Amino acid sequence: MRQEKIVEDKIDKGITAPIGYKAAGIHCGIKKLKKDIALILSDYPATAAAVFTLNKVQAAPVLVSKEHLQTNGKFRAIIINSGNANACTGERGYDDAKKMAEETAQVLGIKTDEVFVGSTGVIGEPLPMEKIINGINQISQLANEYGYLDAAEAIMTTDTFLKSFSSSFFIEGAKVSIGGIAKGSGMIHPNMATMLGFITTDAAIEQETFQLLLKKIVDKTFNRIIVDGDTSTNDMVIALANGTSGIKPLKPETESYKIFEEQFYQVLKKLALDIVRDGEGATKLVEITVEGASTEIDAVKAAKAVALSPLVKTAIHGEDANWGRIITAVGYSGIEFDPAKLEIIINDVPILTKNYVVALPIKEANQTLKSKNIHLLIKLNLNGGNATCWTCDFSEEYVKINGSYRS
Amino acid sequence: MRQEKIVEDKIDKGITAPIGYKAAGIHCGIKKLKKDIALILSDYPATAAAVFTLNKVQAAPVLVSKEHLQTNGKFRAIIINSGNANACTGERGYDDAKKMAEETAQVLGIKTDEVFVGSTGVIGEPLPMEKIINGINQISQLANEYGYLDAAEAIMTTDTFLKSFSSSFFIEGAKVSIGGIAKGSGMIHPNMATMLGFITTDAAIEQETFQLLLKKIVDKTFNRIIVDGDTSTNDMVIALANGTSGIKPLKPETESYKIFEEQFYQVLKKLALDIVRDGEGATKLVEITVEGASTEIDAVKAAKAVALSPLVKTAIHGEDANWGRIITAVGYSGIEFDPAKLEIIINDVPILTKNYVVALPIKEANQTLKSKNIHLLIKLNLNGGNATCWTCDFSEEYVKINGSYRS
Repeated sequence: MRQEKIVEDKIDKGITAPIGYKAAGIHCGIKKLKKDIALILSDYPATAAAVFTLNKVQAAPVLVSKEHLQTNGKFRAIIINSGNANACTGERGYDDAKKMAEETAQVLGIKTDEVFVGSTGVIGEPLPMEKIINGINQISQLANEYGYLDAAEAIMTTDTFLKSFSSSFFIEGAKVSIGGIAKGSGMIHPNMATMLGFITTDAAIEQETFQLLLKKIVDKTFNRIIVDGDTSTNDMVIALANGTSGIKPLKPETESYKIFEEQFYQVLKKLALDIVRDGEGATKLVEITVEGASTEIDAVKAAKAVALSPLVKTAIHGEDANWGRIITAVGYSGIEFDPAKLEIIINDVPILTKNYVVALPIKEANQTLKSKNIHLLIKLNLNGGNATCWTCDFSEEYVKINGSYRS
Repeated sequence: MRQEKIVEDKIDKGITAPIGYKAAGIHCGIKKLKKDIALILSDYPATAAAVFTLNKVQAAPVLVSKEHLQTNGKFRAIIINSGNANACTGERGYDDAKKMAEETAQVLGIKTDEVFVGSTGVIGEPLPMEKIINGINQISQLANEYGYLDAAEAIMTTDTFLKSFSSSFFIEGAKVSIGGIAKGSGMIHPNMATMLGFITTDAAIEQETFQLLLKKIVDKTFNRIIVDGDTSTNDMVIALANGTSGIKPLKPETESYKIFEEQFYQVLKKLALDIVRDGEGATKLVEITVEGASTEIDAVKAAKAVALSPLVKTAIHGEDANWGRIITAVGYSGIEFDPAKLEIIINDVPILTKNYVVALPIKEANQTLKSKNIHLLIKLNLNGGNATCWTCDFSEEYVKINGSYRS
């Protein structure tokens, strides 16, 4: 059985792990040498869900992709270029983004509004359309079920490693897969920064359900990672579900749905954490959990304030267990809490206990920060509001990269 | 005439420029070698105004100073220590701060609630009270009208230069002076960061009027400076007006009041800008003006978002006129605007004009950032909302200082 065979092969094949997807990534000339155009293709019309940047300045590909999602719920392709964001490019930029969709549709023999468009790179410069059109023609011939790493590579900008992941599991006896690629690095912040994420699955799911699920899971993954607090003009996470696994459409509240949701969360979380790990100049991955806030919203606020604080991030970089900076950040996060009830635990070691009691000498406390992976647990001991977010440390390297690199 | 003579001498004497003030700064042993305790003394009960940190975690000296201001509108002294913030120190910390006021009052023969208390330095460690009590006894003997620089020095922490300024001018034929000292450096952010400011004047003004004035001017100066976005537990700006100039109490809307307000603004602005200049690792002073927003509130939001953006600050450090990062920051500031109408002017040179038209080649644009003083003008061309704020660039040095220094 051909289909069964493919299923077995699909594990760890990123966006081509689910059945019926092809991908490619090539160099078309926007960048000097590196791959700069990617295509993701579903053999069958796929239900689409998407979330876009909340920045008031929205790049042309964001506008075009949003438009297509409004007129059409089923998609066949995503065309993405890196090296040029096609942002702040006015009407010409809009026409260029539209042209990317049109050209892709024409070459593939599909409809323009079945195509999403994504771009990332320098802001304010027109796209080199001739190169891109040539690229689209070439890449459309090349897409195959082994192109998942090429596609992941072709969407990178300052990323130092490619981000690709997949998960396969069973629902009602049928094998279902979810794959994803992402790019991040720098300007990473909740509510979408220069961050692109593309998710494929062979599950079947109705559009409204899929959109709610994507929004929910993005809020707990991509929107909980923080590198430097800037949000950008081009961010998007797009998910396609083409139903080729043969399962019945997933319905909320069912056991099947819960299995799918958990795996969907794991794939998005893995991609999100890879983005943090690859934060510009990052040397440590920092998981910040706030427990016992009045509400989950408060817990998120406090965790994000700590994650955004340059003083906390430089202290972690310097392996200084400076709890004063942590408590200060919670203090200006805007939430209600009682500082005397606050506890701080780093990598399972209590640093500060209630009533400001310092649990161990500073030199020993600093030892907890030697690891590459830091778990910072802040207990507010007020109520049941919990949240986790992720960030990286802040190094001299970050400043070097961003003072000299033009992104 | 003794008084006339003094008036002539007072120019440029910081907080002792106004008549009837004494100051001192000495080493009492909190720090290893540097001055760490300061006293500001008014010979006569002075009308007091004060603004305090909005952080939910408020250090003991903030709590005690607020209490005293509630029970009493007239003050004689401000006692300040550096090297230890007396923050997150619980009941003991409160008792210690109160004790600082009591001891100062006793030695000077004044009332406890005529004393403000300020602290700055390490969070979470108890004050070395024996040293401080000794210090208070010593410093009370030393206060004189030439101690203004010693006082300015004694409140410094990571500051690299002392911040002292005064202005003398005439109101209705009488000489009036305003003096101030401040400390900042790192953790500088609107709504009071680890920032202390102490202002003296010999003007006469009623408390309610003085409080409104201080709040208004702090909002346009100390609350418009941004170094890294962190706000702290200990910040305060305290102003004393002892009336010794002999002028009638200043009334709002009068010509005299307007003269005073303008000078008061100039003194606070000078101190605030000195704090930015001394931002940890700063190499450039950046003035950000947003013009033509819907409202002044929107203009402030946009200016602060740009001032807070690590990507903008590192680009300015790298002398890269990266307008894409500026427009992106305005985009996520949360205000309404039309990106196509936005213009960016750096040091009077247009960089970006309407409809995303790039005004000159990037190499020439970068030349505008060579200066130590950068004026970044962002025109939204929407309405009449204008605002200015100040920040510094973000250097590798910032990360080094904060990764290794324990503050």
